[in-house]
Amino acid sequence: MKKGNMLIAQSGGPSMVINQSLAGAVLAARELKEVGRIYGALHGIQGILDENFINLRKESKSTMEAVAATPSSALGSVRRKPTSADCQDIFKVLRKLDIRYFFYIGGNDSAETVHIINEEAKKDGYAICCFHIPKTIDNDLRESDHTPGFGSAAKFVASAIQGDDLDNRALGGVKIDIIMGRNAGFLTAAAALARVDLDDGPHLIYLPERTFTISQFVKDVKAAMKKYGRCVIAVSEGIVDEKGVPIIAKYTKEVDAHGNVQMGGTGALGDLLATTLKKKAKIKRVRADTFGYLQRSFPGVVSASDASEARQAGAAAVKAAVVDGIASGSIAIKRKKAKKYAVSFEPVALRKVAKETRHMPASYINKAGNNVTAAFIEYARPLVGSLTPCARFVQLKK
Amino acid sequence: MKKGNMLIAQSGGPSMVINQSLAGAVLAARELKEVGRIYGALHGIQGILDENFINLRKESKSTMEAVAATPSSALGSVRRKPTSADCQDIFKVLRKLDIRYFFYIGGNDSAETVHIINEEAKKDGYAICCFHIPKTIDNDLRESDHTPGFGSAAKFVASAIQGDDLDNRALGGVKIDIIMGRNAGFLTAAAALARVDLDDGPHLIYLPERTFTISQFVKDVKAAMKKYGRCVIAVSEGIVDEKGVPIIAKYTKEVDAHGNVQMGGTGALGDLLATTLKKKAKIKRVRADTFGYLQRSFPGVVSASDASEARQAGAAAVKAAVVDGIASGSIAIKRKKAKKYAVSFEPVALRKVAKETRHMPASYINKAGNNVTAAFIEYARPLVGSLTPCARFVQLKK
Repeated sequence: MKKGNMLIAQSGGPSMVINQSLAGAVLAARELKEVGRIYGALHGIQGILDENFINLRKESKSTMEAVAATPSSALGSVRRKPTSADCQDIFKVLRKLDIRYFFYIGGNDSAETVHIINEEAKKDGYAICCFHIPKTIDNDLRESDHTPGFGSAAKFVASAIQGDDLDNRALGGVKIDIIMGRNAGFLTAAAALARVDLDDGPHLIYLPERTFTISQFVKDVKAAMKKYGRCVIAVSEGIVDEKGVPIIAKYTKEVDAHGNVQMGGTGALGDLLATTLKKKAKIKRVRADTFGYLQRSFPGVVSASDASEARQAGAAAVKAAVVDGIASGSIAIKRKKAKKYAVSFEPVALRKVAKETRHMPASYINKAGNNVTAAFIEYARPLVGSLTPCARFVQLKK
Repeated sequence: MKKGNMLIAQSGGPSMVINQSLAGAVLAARELKEVGRIYGALHGIQGILDENFINLRKESKSTMEAVAATPSSALGSVRRKPTSADCQDIFKVLRKLDIRYFFYIGGNDSAETVHIINEEAKKDGYAICCFHIPKTIDNDLRESDHTPGFGSAAKFVASAIQGDDLDNRALGGVKIDIIMGRNAGFLTAAAALARVDLDDGPHLIYLPERTFTISQFVKDVKAAMKKYGRCVIAVSEGIVDEKGVPIIAKYTKEVDAHGNVQMGGTGALGDLLATTLKKKAKIKRVRADTFGYLQRSFPGVVSASDASEARQAGAAAVKAAVVDGIASGSIAIKRKKAKKYAVSFEPVALRKVAKETRHMPASYINKAGNNVTAAFIEYARPLVGSLTPCARFVQLKK
């Protein structure tokens, strides 16, 4: 309940609803008498170091709402892990502005950044409340049932696969779709939400939680071609070989400040798999698409519950920090044990969310490691909501 | 006005509205007493050869409407150019079913197929009315102001670039987006519809109508990086070198029945350009996405005028053939010379539409060959309609 100024920023990969969290936090803070000025730092901690701020009290309510509904990170983003020296520079700026509340919206790397800043501030004797607001389309934050950003990206993926499966029905052959999610399979698994009829794609799903071998892949595709006469395949960008090394790592060498290999923004993995199938499975028509950044930034493709929860997560962080006086933490989304889908937003310790990632539980993956289970569908459906209806001729339905 | 049974089929690449044309033709034909049975051949002329039909009188009105709003080709598609022997086999089947009206929905290759069948039927003395119904996201049919399918694909492209530009604002560097359209630049040019503010991307646009050289590309990107501090680039999959050879042709060797090189379903071109920029322009963060088949199949991303015109084009073909008694032809969309956007649907000779493609007129391309003109925007805007609104903080607008 202490009085002070507030600073908020965004970090890591953008999403469809990260601005909802920003609006949720800022609009909640504006209502609290404990909060003085509200600074938005541009491009995450880089904006603090550069003293590059905007005044988030000055933006009108209607601008805040319009920005909330807009994809990408309205304050700009950054991938930078602060060193001790960075923290000292950051504290100089924060002290000057009398910042007592720091909110950082992002994934596990951003949570690590908040954790580092929080620990350094304690050492330094600088009294600041540090909160992480969850965001990641990868859905890989520990402690949470799911993360803001996932539902909307999953809706994009499921919609894209739905259309792509119809496209594949028309022209046949094999279609490979490379889907984001890094080392967690959730987003790729969401492709399964596209299915309505029994013979709908995706017919095969490959996740980073299981070893990927070319020989099994070729065998699986041949069997699917025999069964369906065509094949749509959802492949995670993060699939790994027998040694646990991402297959894409052989093609891209770029590594970010947090030690992550570049996985997006290249079609190399899809092309490798397509070439392999043409050669080894002797299939004539094989096409590969890499869904790429559209998964996190396509205007208008938003899950309503995701948007609402992202908004609430932002507000929950402000409540935890300012109203409840919790010194530091992250916000976890917990699913209530109830028949009807419902969630709560709970503060958790930063170290429980920082750095490490969560993976698909075994119960969501089939035995053969090339598909998801009904349990996953049940888990993911309410996060995504309904898709655009697609129809086929009644006579064509088998 | 002669009586007879009718056959309709779809061919070539699917689109968001090709089923609107199917519904338009079938529902119009159902109202005409001259039309007897209405056969839908599955997978184009392949379905005729295989005698693989469905009864399009039997499908309910509500199914027809639901299918009309669904992407891809509901009857399945094919890429097959009929030989004289194929035509003889086709006529055997058509005679057996007493087909007197043949409608084929597709692009310039499909128009060529209709032209071949029409000429062979004349030689053969088989009285059949052959009509081509236009469809192509490439917008490259001669005689037409634009083609059904283009507006919706252009809406997908413009929306994708709008979101991707916001994504690039957040994290910086260079983003390359490879866009469909084969040898015509219209769809890539539609990326420009994403621009609202002066510094919005795409900052550079490369079209197949102009020679693409790596040296000029590197120079252009360096200049854009200097001006905007970041760069979003729309590149047509069909860009060509000094000799007019598609650059992608060096990477994919597959050729279809109509002699077209495979351009989609691979990320090779984007990856080549990204690698080149990293090396030659010394830019650290360069990402490439290939929009792929989503451009023609993403459920729900439809231009209202495109959907309506596709429907009308189907009905216009039936009217021309059955009511007006025109022996053969295609339907061209002509834009009326009026202040408010309006079009008419006119029958044109098959040979005027078959095979050859239309390109971007010079007036739509800037002098440097790396952008579009205001004249293109004026041309394309009414075909696409409005995009999902995106917003930025007022203070961040320069």
